[in-house]
Amino acid sequence: MTEQPANRRRLSRRHLLTSGAVAGGALLGGGAVAAVTDRDRPAAAPTPVADLSIGTGTEPFHGPRQAGVATYPQAHASFVAFTLHRGVDRAALGRLMRLLTDDAARLTQGQPALADTERELALLPARLTVTFGFGPGFYRAAGLDDRRPPSVADLPPFAIDRLEPRWSGGDLLIQICADDPVTVAHAQRMLIKDARPFGAVRWTQLGFRRSRGVQDEAHTQHNLLGQLDGTTNPQPGTAAFEQAVWVSDGPAWQRDGTTLVIRRIRTELETWDLLGRTDKEMALGRRLDTGAPLTGQAEHDPPDFTATDELGFTVIPEFSHVARAHVADERLMIMRRPYNYDGVPNADGHPDSGLIFASYQADIDRQFLPVQRRLAERDLLNEWTTPIGSAVFAIPPGCAPGGWVGQQLLE
Amino acid sequence: MTEQPANRRRLSRRHLLTSGAVAGGALLGGGAVAAVTDRDRPAAAPTPVADLSIGTGTEPFHGPRQAGVATYPQAHASFVAFTLHRGVDRAALGRLMRLLTDDAARLTQGQPALADTERELALLPARLTVTFGFGPGFYRAAGLDDRRPPSVADLPPFAIDRLEPRWSGGDLLIQICADDPVTVAHAQRMLIKDARPFGAVRWTQLGFRRSRGVQDEAHTQHNLLGQLDGTTNPQPGTAAFEQAVWVSDGPAWQRDGTTLVIRRIRTELETWDLLGRTDKEMALGRRLDTGAPLTGQAEHDPPDFTATDELGFTVIPEFSHVARAHVADERLMIMRRPYNYDGVPNADGHPDSGLIFASYQADIDRQFLPVQRRLAERDLLNEWTTPIGSAVFAIPPGCAPGGWVGQQLLE
Repeated sequence: MTEQPANRRRLSRRHLLTSGAVAGGALLGGGAVAAVTDRDRPAAAPTPVADLSIGTGTEPFHGPRQAGVATYPQAHASFVAFTLHRGVDRAALGRLMRLLTDDAARLTQGQPALADTERELALLPARLTVTFGFGPGFYRAAGLDDRRPPSVADLPPFAIDRLEPRWSGGDLLIQICADDPVTVAHAQRMLIKDARPFGAVRWTQLGFRRSRGVQDEAHTQHNLLGQLDGTTNPQPGTAAFEQAVWVSDGPAWQRDGTTLVIRRIRTELETWDLLGRTDKEMALGRRLDTGAPLTGQAEHDPPDFTATDELGFTVIPEFSHVARAHVADERLMIMRRPYNYDGVPNADGHPDSGLIFASYQADIDRQFLPVQRRLAERDLLNEWTTPIGSAVFAIPPGCAPGGWVGQQLLE
Repeated sequence: MTEQPANRRRLSRRHLLTSGAVAGGALLGGGAVAAVTDRDRPAAAPTPVADLSIGTGTEPFHGPRQAGVATYPQAHASFVAFTLHRGVDRAALGRLMRLLTDDAARLTQGQPALADTERELALLPARLTVTFGFGPGFYRAAGLDDRRPPSVADLPPFAIDRLEPRWSGGDLLIQICADDPVTVAHAQRMLIKDARPFGAVRWTQLGFRRSRGVQDEAHTQHNLLGQLDGTTNPQPGTAAFEQAVWVSDGPAWQRDGTTLVIRRIRTELETWDLLGRTDKEMALGRRLDTGAPLTGQAEHDPPDFTATDELGFTVIPEFSHVARAHVADERLMIMRRPYNYDGVPNADGHPDSGLIFASYQADIDRQFLPVQRRLAERDLLNEWTTPIGSAVFAIPPGCAPGGWVGQQLLE
């Protein structure tokens, strides 16, 4: 047993040396590193990953805007919504947000929370962000309903909705994202422990995207339907993003904030998979492989909704998802940051899969609702997707060191 | 909207150029890559990961032994157990295993399954392995109970068990591991679709470890209890591993196989977290930070069970986990390949966390049961861990191209 660490080190070093040429290619940004193969599969450790910065990477916590919105989506997310306990008032909410802000400021920088019970798990932040959202009930509890952004209110019902209370609503949201699932689990545990004296966990949604290092960051990812999801998002750093996502005026408790709509959308993979590729592409209005619109060659080609085929039908069906979701005015766009979910399949092998649709926009009424109404009214994709959860939150501005999230609102 | 891809590319290129010195450090194996920070958080894409081989990496499928045992543990795992339908006999099992073997051979190499309904999701294998296990019911259904390895049988009950049927038993196991959760979800879906005409999904357990690129492969990982888990594992490539894990003789359907015990062990984090660090370390017999035995300095120092303190007590408590789990004879060791699970916390914020304990050994009776009996009888850690699921499987040998897993047994 005492030889094991030495063995292990030798093994790694041997791999590094014998696979030198290949590893060198990887260090220079080259292609795939071939796995070592031989009869007996003796190698436990795969060819080492050259860059261990995935674990030590950090995102800044302090700033005028909260992280976790413009941040390039991390691989794992947990959205935890709370129902505030009766009697939790403005002063209590101030204490709660001081506590949670302190936890988040430490954990995101790879430091244990003050009362951290598993300190070792805090040391690899993996780009952890913690983002706080206030639901309508948060403002009511604080006695500050007049300060609630008007569009942060329960959405009107849509005919396509099959909403379940267990995935809907919430007074306080903690959005936890990181490139490592252990980091997310640990941060979730610490934050819930500090929040639960003030509220009950109403729902928790765990989601995932591709792991870091699996796809280039510039690549739009396929979701579990096989759809390239996020093509028309406004891009951080552009004027379009600034206008579409961030609140630029109004009182201090709104400025540099945004709003978040979370919809849990079950995908009906059993019936979706009965379609051929052509039918799937007609429903989406885009190619499955490249994500190109049916009238284009590349993902980001603008769709031509007027182009017709030899029979006079539009090439992109009028009721396809891309046609119904299209927003021409970039100030009215929404910024999606979606995650896949995949629960436990039932005995028949039917999956519990879908999308945690998370959309950020300066104003829900002005930006999200028009798109949602068009999609709810007629979108071919509705046949294979079912909204089963819905919640809305204001994302208040960030804070400087020494401050706390919600301070402008609550103090 | 049409400017977005160009914007995106510009952004990435600009980052690459302006962060050249830092990125260069990373390419040379340097430390953390600092996140770009400025007032407006304009950057969606984080500093790019230098090495994208995490997505394209493959593990060989064909060979005398199945992959997924000696393979360095991937970040994500799904264990799916089936109850075979009545009437599924030896011939049907042959058809089933031909189908599943074909799926696994393709998917693990980054190719879509023959009937793949989301082909694009198959293209990034991320070291996918698919490992098949046969429970006692598999041999019964095949009418081949005489070929069942004798130790592949329901475990005797232990006083600490609180087993739930929904996490226990199973006739067929598909173990799916990859460094990417989308890859696991897709492979799981394809394999279940081909298996379900033959059986019902009995249970599915989803687990995770640190993402690739978060920790060095030589580093033993902390589980959600904060315990370094896997220190005394035999190391692939050593004689100890060969002897402890692989069956080296007997009929062709056993040779180059192994056995697998899966136990779902709930961790009682609510009470565990009431302990101070010293008490936790006494229960474990090891330090929480380094994993060193209480009598040593480094993780792999051999524990000294005879050392006493000034009061005459042994430094490592007699009933600590390390003392009870210790195996002196390396031929009798077990090889653990554990995964964390973390479900949805309840309204009170109590977590649904624990360990998917997966142990591989040539013979369950000879290797696993003696350790398990010692632990069940008296292990301080029992206070904070509860076995809620249990299943045993034979892992048959692998197969050559053109062959299929289970062929030696069923043909």
